[in-house]
Amino acid sequence: MNVDDLDTPALLIDLDRVERNIRRMQEYCDAHGLALRPHIKTHKIPALAHRQVRAGARGITCQKIGEAEVMAAAGLTDILITFNLLGPAKMERLARLAREIDVKVTADAPEVVEGLAAMARGAGVRLPVLVECDTGFARCGVQTPQQAVALARRIAAEDSLRFAGLMTYPTQPSSGPWLRQARDLLVESGLAPRTISGGGSVSAWTTHDYPEITELRTGNYIYYDRTNVGLGAATFEDCAQHVLATVVSRPTPTRGILDAGSKSLTTDILRAEAGPGHGRIVEYPEATIYALSEEHGHVDFSACARPPAIGERVHIIANHACTVSNLFDVAHAHRGGRVEAIWPIAARGMVR
Amino acid sequence: MNVDDLDTPALLIDLDRVERNIRRMQEYCDAHGLALRPHIKTHKIPALAHRQVRAGARGITCQKIGEAEVMAAAGLTDILITFNLLGPAKMERLARLAREIDVKVTADAPEVVEGLAAMARGAGVRLPVLVECDTGFARCGVQTPQQAVALARRIAAEDSLRFAGLMTYPTQPSSGPWLRQARDLLVESGLAPRTISGGGSVSAWTTHDYPEITELRTGNYIYYDRTNVGLGAATFEDCAQHVLATVVSRPTPTRGILDAGSKSLTTDILRAEAGPGHGRIVEYPEATIYALSEEHGHVDFSACARPPAIGERVHIIANHACTVSNLFDVAHAHRGGRVEAIWPIAARGMVR
Repeated sequence: MNVDDLDTPALLIDLDRVERNIRRMQEYCDAHGLALRPHIKTHKIPALAHRQVRAGARGITCQKIGEAEVMAAAGLTDILITFNLLGPAKMERLARLAREIDVKVTADAPEVVEGLAAMARGAGVRLPVLVECDTGFARCGVQTPQQAVALARRIAAEDSLRFAGLMTYPTQPSSGPWLRQARDLLVESGLAPRTISGGGSVSAWTTHDYPEITELRTGNYIYYDRTNVGLGAATFEDCAQHVLATVVSRPTPTRGILDAGSKSLTTDILRAEAGPGHGRIVEYPEATIYALSEEHGHVDFSACARPPAIGERVHIIANHACTVSNLFDVAHAHRGGRVEAIWPIAARGMVR
Repeated sequence: MNVDDLDTPALLIDLDRVERNIRRMQEYCDAHGLALRPHIKTHKIPALAHRQVRAGARGITCQKIGEAEVMAAAGLTDILITFNLLGPAKMERLARLAREIDVKVTADAPEVVEGLAAMARGAGVRLPVLVECDTGFARCGVQTPQQAVALARRIAAEDSLRFAGLMTYPTQPSSGPWLRQARDLLVESGLAPRTISGGGSVSAWTTHDYPEITELRTGNYIYYDRTNVGLGAATFEDCAQHVLATVVSRPTPTRGILDAGSKSLTTDILRAEAGPGHGRIVEYPEATIYALSEEHGHVDFSACARPPAIGERVHIIANHACTVSNLFDVAHAHRGGRVEAIWPIAARGMVR
């Protein structure tokens, strides 16, 4: 089967590029003594998580417990869930996971730590917990290094928990001094952090500039996308995820309509650096996907020397690869256009 | 089971509101002699499509053939697919549908009509085809009433097709004169259109101002959403879809983080009239969901007298109900909080 045989829209994964991207990031981490813990949110496919681990990754990162359940069921054994987990339903699921595999979680508040401790006590496990630190992004996380130490003490005081280090997202210039101070305070307190985990795709290649950081969590590098190319993290030739679409209407000489809309590409406009519009059409790089309906991509082909005919198929590099993966049930993995695998996107939709 | 027992995020459907919304729109159409053909993209749930038909709808509207397959398999028998269908894979699927149920499609170009005619000839069916008209929205559609007539002739000339009328989206002020002229030209040509189908949620209640239009396609009215409330089409008390979420982090006195991000709410900003941010928190209407990560909703609670504690659960009315339905695998239908049905969102992800 060739990608030319697939009906559209379809989600294509270029295996040669995936393998190169995995290798490069692992080589970077190895060269700098960093543990790599890929975030699987970009692909949500167990077969790719296994490739990342086989290439040398320490384990994987998940954001939701449902993603971790899928990956554990597929044989992944070292999973960090970077999310405050709360409530009886999630505690029951976490207990099952913790008995089965090496699962670690994060927390940014005593209420979260209390719930984790009670769960681990009941389950008869000792759960590693990292303190989530807000080092400048202003999302979750304790606000100061002093608060990080206080929460680390709170974790260490629980027999059923183990203080496992610090976590931040994303790694950015303000993260260095913040984490250094927190680390030094922790060492003074006899709570030297085993792991200091930084993350993000934009700063991934500069993680070695932050000597405090021992582990890199990054996801997007396996596929890259138009935003990461715009930000200089990759080239279009590195992009391994394409949405295959068909030009279904050519109502005017310059307008074209694709059968891929926001249900295939998402409306995500991550960063202005991606450039105008909702994706890059590989065959028509001068075209602009200027609007999206749910099932229609609205394209301005006026800058193209030869606009496409009705029925022509195109490859689109979306602005945001991770959320595109969340929209499709299967991905077609190919090498030079020849389909080698049809992978269920098994962790798609796992918001719980 | 009560919604209080559900883990979050979860997609809730308020059945009392759904039934009221269905009844009101059907009453409006009945009062004005309009056929109602609800667009199922808003809910993607066969049980709700059946309720719409039982209430008096003529049939349903789907955007993709995969949606129509799901609905036909669930017993819906009159389906309009408002999309240019192209290529052998879709023609094979359309042939199966056309042998099984009353399926109609649209077309805006001779290339599309040719493919449909060949398919119908081979399948031994006579397929009704409406001409899609661009009456001002600038998406798909023939550009002038004269082109509509030419394409209608092209359809009528095929033994395997039947010219079934005109379709436009959305109905807007420019649609009236456009459709009137097209209708008059068609009548002169002996091709009087049986159906003139208008659509859209914002203009739904004013469809009777367009006497040319005989059929209303609208979807959002079954749930409504924050955008439609902002546009004056409904009130928050009409909104029947809620994303149930938990406040998982309270890193600062004014910031709160929800466990529902863009994978639960979408980043869709349909219209500025929705108001700032990514949804309305029913319990905290003064709060602003000012940013979304994939799994985090970033909320500013500074305008609220009493911000929530970690672990508190909230109901969110999203900006765009249709794409939210596309993100969840199941919906929990409740009456006053008591869960009456757990419905698979069976037509979710049907982009082909």
